[in-house]
Amino acid sequence: MTVVDYKTVIENKQASNFQKIPVEWRLEKIPSPEEQKEVAPFIEPLLSDKELWITNVSAIELLENLKAGKISALEVTQAFCHRSALVHQLTDCLIEIFYDQALERAKELDSYFAKTAKLVGPLHGIPISLKDQFNLKGITTSIGFTAPHISKELENIVGQKETDQESYLVQILHDAGAVFYVKTTVPMAMFGNETSSNLSTTTHPFDRRKTPGGSSGGEAALLSGKGSVIGLGTDIGGSIRGPCVQCGLYGMRGSSNRYPYLGISNSYPHQTCVPSVTGPMCRYLEDLELVSKVIIDAEPWLVDAKVPPIPWKESVELDTVNVGIMVWDKQIKPHPPILRALKETETNLKKAGIDTLEVEPPVSHLEICDFLTDLYTCDDFAEVKKYAALSGEPLSDLIQRTFKLNGHIATLEDTFNASAQKYNYQQIYDKFWNSTAKLTKNGKPLDCIIMPGWASTSWKSGENMKIANVYTRFLNVLDYSVLTIPITTVNESDDPFERTDFSGEADKVCWEYYNKDFYLGMPVVLQLVCRRYEEEKCIALAKKLLPIIRNT
Amino acid sequence: MTVVDYKTVIENKQASNFQKIPVEWRLEKIPSPEEQKEVAPFIEPLLSDKELWITNVSAIELLENLKAGKISALEVTQAFCHRSALVHQLTDCLIEIFYDQALERAKELDSYFAKTAKLVGPLHGIPISLKDQFNLKGITTSIGFTAPHISKELENIVGQKETDQESYLVQILHDAGAVFYVKTTVPMAMFGNETSSNLSTTTHPFDRRKTPGGSSGGEAALLSGKGSVIGLGTDIGGSIRGPCVQCGLYGMRGSSNRYPYLGISNSYPHQTCVPSVTGPMCRYLEDLELVSKVIIDAEPWLVDAKVPPIPWKESVELDTVNVGIMVWDKQIKPHPPILRALKETETNLKKAGIDTLEVEPPVSHLEICDFLTDLYTCDDFAEVKKYAALSGEPLSDLIQRTFKLNGHIATLEDTFNASAQKYNYQQIYDKFWNSTAKLTKNGKPLDCIIMPGWASTSWKSGENMKIANVYTRFLNVLDYSVLTIPITTVNESDDPFERTDFSGEADKVCWEYYNKDFYLGMPVVLQLVCRRYEEEKCIALAKKLLPIIRNT
Repeated sequence: MTVVDYKTVIENKQASNFQKIPVEWRLEKIPSPEEQKEVAPFIEPLLSDKELWITNVSAIELLENLKAGKISALEVTQAFCHRSALVHQLTDCLIEIFYDQALERAKELDSYFAKTAKLVGPLHGIPISLKDQFNLKGITTSIGFTAPHISKELENIVGQKETDQESYLVQILHDAGAVFYVKTTVPMAMFGNETSSNLSTTTHPFDRRKTPGGSSGGEAALLSGKGSVIGLGTDIGGSIRGPCVQCGLYGMRGSSNRYPYLGISNSYPHQTCVPSVTGPMCRYLEDLELVSKVIIDAEPWLVDAKVPPIPWKESVELDTVNVGIMVWDKQIKPHPPILRALKETETNLKKAGIDTLEVEPPVSHLEICDFLTDLYTCDDFAEVKKYAALSGEPLSDLIQRTFKLNGHIATLEDTFNASAQKYNYQQIYDKFWNSTAKLTKNGKPLDCIIMPGWASTSWKSGENMKIANVYTRFLNVLDYSVLTIPITTVNESDDPFERTDFSGEADKVCWEYYNKDFYLGMPVVLQLVCRRYEEEKCIALAKKLLPIIRNT
Repeated sequence: MTVVDYKTVIENKQASNFQKIPVEWRLEKIPSPEEQKEVAPFIEPLLSDKELWITNVSAIELLENLKAGKISALEVTQAFCHRSALVHQLTDCLIEIFYDQALERAKELDSYFAKTAKLVGPLHGIPISLKDQFNLKGITTSIGFTAPHISKELENIVGQKETDQESYLVQILHDAGAVFYVKTTVPMAMFGNETSSNLSTTTHPFDRRKTPGGSSGGEAALLSGKGSVIGLGTDIGGSIRGPCVQCGLYGMRGSSNRYPYLGISNSYPHQTCVPSVTGPMCRYLEDLELVSKVIIDAEPWLVDAKVPPIPWKESVELDTVNVGIMVWDKQIKPHPPILRALKETETNLKKAGIDTLEVEPPVSHLEICDFLTDLYTCDDFAEVKKYAALSGEPLSDLIQRTFKLNGHIATLEDTFNASAQKYNYQQIYDKFWNSTAKLTKNGKPLDCIIMPGWASTSWKSGENMKIANVYTRFLNVLDYSVLTIPITTVNESDDPFERTDFSGEADKVCWEYYNKDFYLGMPVVLQLVCRRYEEEKCIALAKKLLPIIRNT
């Protein structure tokens, strides 16, 4: 193997990406985050009215217009390529750019439509962005490591794959008519709740001083910057939900393998106790429903052995609804705007005659978080270190500050104990959930629990350790279906207030991090939690409840 | 801890069981297997006409009569208690006897019916026998070890449980009206395809020189001796299907956790790569359907986190059906009667206009069997040795002759590799299954594959090593739904024949074991294999195809 300098590899990769942006879309000068906090006002003047319209509406609306022949797949694709290039130059959210292929594909779709007057499938001409774990023929997958940019051989080692085969989900979406055009950044090995690696540091399009979260932060930055309409992320501890919470998006963490993971590269792909899941991230709830239905209607269980054969339910009965509200977990209190969102949620639901019930965790979420961290680091990060060593790069700063290793490699007995412990946590929570039937008016258990998605709505890049991450991870262990639901934005009423009930240092540090001026205008997003494999119910509840909660 | 002699513990347990049989049901002299091969002719003269009728018909027919008030739950329970006591005395199939409780329960059900003219549930008054892994309050669970018969403390260690809680499935069946009266024998730690431990050696009620198979051989012996109408077994490599094949029964190995396992004691309960599953064993297909529906209709996924939320399908569309026939796996050729059953199956289906397709394994089943054996012995049987040591008993002869240990304890990497390998086998088989669409007349993939259930129909007790066990185990790794289907019995036409195509020594030894006279009259049972979580389809196909196959 040739000895290479990993820094040179990274510089070459960045230069090569820049070359893939057409000259006319390149920005002459990139303002600093302090000079230009927000992306939209800077890039929108560079887009045509049609491009602005295309990148602003839902995929559903684009499809209606495509079907009516009012716009072409090429126009749609071009608009998203253009806007994604601009968002990327300000947020560093793309790791793979392949606009040429995308435009070719769009032309083929237009040609099919011209000949048949039919759409090729339910996602005809819709650009879909993919987190850099998805495999597409001829496109590198690097999952946050530098080595895959050196050679195909190293890419296959890091991606734990033998061939240039595509992710199965890519095939499903392609067959439905989707257009792929970019892959988005991830932190090294997808570990961390920011999106920085030695290759890139992605920033938040609403405030470039801040992080879009992680690990699907490249997706979230691109989507909230409107450089994409539908994206696909992955989540083993909040990697879809965190970025969606920080960026104001709808994101679904489905129960294990509801959405097929076959052929998606991953760290520790065979750690099956609490597996990573894939799921859609969108600006429109209807788009999230559409893409979910397309995926599940493909009957993925016939191809991916891990997918349970549960067809997509066309309708969910929601005559009377019981909504649980978990204001906080008694460990890390969320910031004032999140507390307000929860209060408004409860008040508005009650006003509309919907039965709500305040609930508290039946088991320590911090304890479950610690359990999950042990699973993440079960090999003392030997695999992560091995893949970093392939290029000579150090472990990312994010990994170094986030994970404390203890030198222990799990034994067979540890893996048995972990399986037992996960099942135990699930039993405790399921029993609690069933027991809510005794407390509701209609004698049925809660239909969902609405709770904070994170203790904070984003933070300054690099400061993730100040915001304890407790609201998403326990749900991976329980394997519940979870949808992030944007509720409001931080406003002038969200003043900080004094507290004396700190649960400990992490709670205090997080609480004191809040600064109204720093947060004004940022999105406030909650989690809507249903039970296992209730993705349809999450969506149906959000459709029913959000207009009430938002008072719209 | 008191020092005890494990042999004394076993003698005491046997004596205590004998005491639980009412004096009037005790046999004066137990003939030897050579003196009295078959159970039925010996015990049927001891039963009343009503007892004979009750123990002969289906649970469905019993329920009709219970509903019409023509028989009482007490009569039904008494008949099964009586017959089970007789079958046990000739086959050693029971490890726990609690007739008193059962009769009390039956009286309560009768009293409920007398008051309300209603059945308490869909299994009102139906006695159900349970393999000795199921936990019932106040009844010992020993999973083939002696230690649990010494003290409750040791029972809890062996059963890996903390309390006297019942298995969740026991609660579901109880709530549906079932009556529990016995628990049936298992081999030590449920390892082995006979049912012998230091506590007992269970024999076959059709020929007491033979084994009923294992590990659910106590259930199979009791059921085929008509001492039970519905039983519950478990299967991690053929433990439901083997005994059903050897004893002529319907048995369902559902896909993982389709039937809830919560609270069932087990060896290696947290080895989750290829988990043990529970499922029903019956003499009547309709009864197997009934009990399956009762279990799944209880929505067990709300209580047992491992159960996927897949409701029981009331109907399965079977307009045109494609049936695969796998005559043998090219490794171990089944005995002549089984080859005849497969031939008749194919011929009769074809004659009825059903599309059949002969298929061969896309991957070596022996290789998958070896993979599974590595999982069984992943801790070098440290757990089995530990539980045996609690009473000082040696490992059972069955374990000693069946398993060769190599001193290796699986590492974390081994567990990752096992997960990957399992998924790989599943992908290979699923691709193969999908590819059959190219070979069928209607262009759809096979609906099921009918194949041997075992290379032989039973064998002399203790000679399991002469009959290679390859037809059930690979299906646990693939996690397909499998139903055993009784087809015919060995008859005078089933002559042995010369072969020159032996795949190896195991094939030759198994083939040469066949002796027509030794097998005459024994049941010939095949496996009907569907894809994952297609238990309803297995049943629907069996209902449709069996009358055609059997020409009845």
